[in-house]
Amino acid sequence: MKNKNIQPKLTLVGAGPGDPDLITVKAITALGKADVILYDALANKKLLQYAPSSIKKIFVGKRNGKHSLKQDQINNLIVDLAFTYGNVVRLKGGDPFVFGRGYEEIQHAELFNIVTEVIPGISSSVGVPALAGIPVTHRGLSESFWVITGTTRTGELSADIKLASQSKATVVILMGVNKLSKIVKIYKAAGKEKLPIALIQNGTLPDERIAIATVATIEEAVQFKKIASPAIIIIGEVVSLHPEFISQELFEKYVLN
Amino acid sequence: MKNKNIQPKLTLVGAGPGDPDLITVKAITALGKADVILYDALANKKLLQYAPSSIKKIFVGKRNGKHSLKQDQINNLIVDLAFTYGNVVRLKGGDPFVFGRGYEEIQHAELFNIVTEVIPGISSSVGVPALAGIPVTHRGLSESFWVITGTTRTGELSADIKLASQSKATVVILMGVNKLSKIVKIYKAAGKEKLPIALIQNGTLPDERIAIATVATIEEAVQFKKIASPAIIIIGEVVSLHPEFISQELFEKYVLN
Repeated sequence: MKNKNIQPKLTLVGAGPGDPDLITVKAITALGKADVILYDALANKKLLQYAPSSIKKIFVGKRNGKHSLKQDQINNLIVDLAFTYGNVVRLKGGDPFVFGRGYEEIQHAELFNIVTEVIPGISSSVGVPALAGIPVTHRGLSESFWVITGTTRTGELSADIKLASQSKATVVILMGVNKLSKIVKIYKAAGKEKLPIALIQNGTLPDERIAIATVATIEEAVQFKKIASPAIIIIGEVVSLHPEFISQELFEKYVLN
Repeated sequence: MKNKNIQPKLTLVGAGPGDPDLITVKAITALGKADVILYDALANKKLLQYAPSSIKKIFVGKRNGKHSLKQDQINNLIVDLAFTYGNVVRLKGGDPFVFGRGYEEIQHAELFNIVTEVIPGISSSVGVPALAGIPVTHRGLSESFWVITGTTRTGELSADIKLASQSKATVVILMGVNKLSKIVKIYKAAGKEKLPIALIQNGTLPDERIAIATVATIEEAVQFKKIASPAIIIIGEVVSLHPEFISQELFEKYVLN
């Protein structure tokens, strides 16, 4: 039986790339109005402080394929909770519409006539490189950036990556660390062995780790720096602007050869 | 003569896409520590409230090519102000590294050993479509999004747009309204007449205007809706998720034909 005083709502909130101070004023206000929160692995837990202390905060994250709720289960849970508690705030890492499956949650909720709202967040695709010192665009080096998921519905690498390897765009791949060797192969096939590439783990956080190299040498650099998921991959001339790239380039030129 | 108590610094701050509540906590803190502010046309003026009321706030924006400071002049002004006042906060619309020429300002300041910091903002490329109800990615429709400037160094359209028209990526073009007919021509040449496309002016603000159509009909829709610069262009299947697209599609099918 539905509670008549309940006003069911779904509010998708972007938590930003990691640093809890990269949350927006609008997101903080939304957290304060939550009746229940569902949060992901990539959303910083410190942000839960902005929600009323009395409400339920439910972890629905998945990380490295470990035990977690499936998307269908999350969709159903949102509807149940909205009719039980009212305003469900769905706190998602980065931006909710950048590979967050956020729109699927909106569509499912709207099937039940639940009011929905979206509050964008800083996408890791732009914020993480920026805070590491790599601009995704820079006059003379890049007129565009292309953000691609490394984890498609089928589990295969997106066909977009092959086309991207032939473009001059800065390419940012999210959730692609486990596919690095396939990505490297595609870039080598496009003749881009010398193109600068970086992997950044735990971007914008105190334990951030970064590996910078060329397409030819990035796999060794990642092993050496012990970079693991979750990390983002940035490929393109703009990566050469990072001070570590210069030393890497000299190392490859004078020590390896 | 340099003031010895001055600690010259340049802080690039992303103001987000328009709505002043889409500013981050980190950006607000940075504004509070400013000794002088240089702000752009696309940064919301309401954000200046977060800065000390006593400091100088200098408008250096350009809009529609009207009289404004050139980039070289801005770079020099930043250096002068940093040595005169200390911490120069450069408030830029969207994210400072997404076609904001932010990295050029960093490079110039570093030539003078000025300490620099970057605080990312929500890029209009993601935030504006999201708040208009268009996710840049959605399973089954888009595995990537590609953000391209409509205004390159040479004044020509970026060559990336031709390749983008052949991809399955959601394509977002910033500062490209004045080049719409060229963009449409490129998409038509790629056989994409029926691809959904939207233009959004003053995104995330109360006076937001949106035109939604197909590649074949967008120019008429833009004239009818009187969309002008500054606006963003979104091209791809995800645009069909917007409720207005359905009615546009029916109109084209049953009224125009």
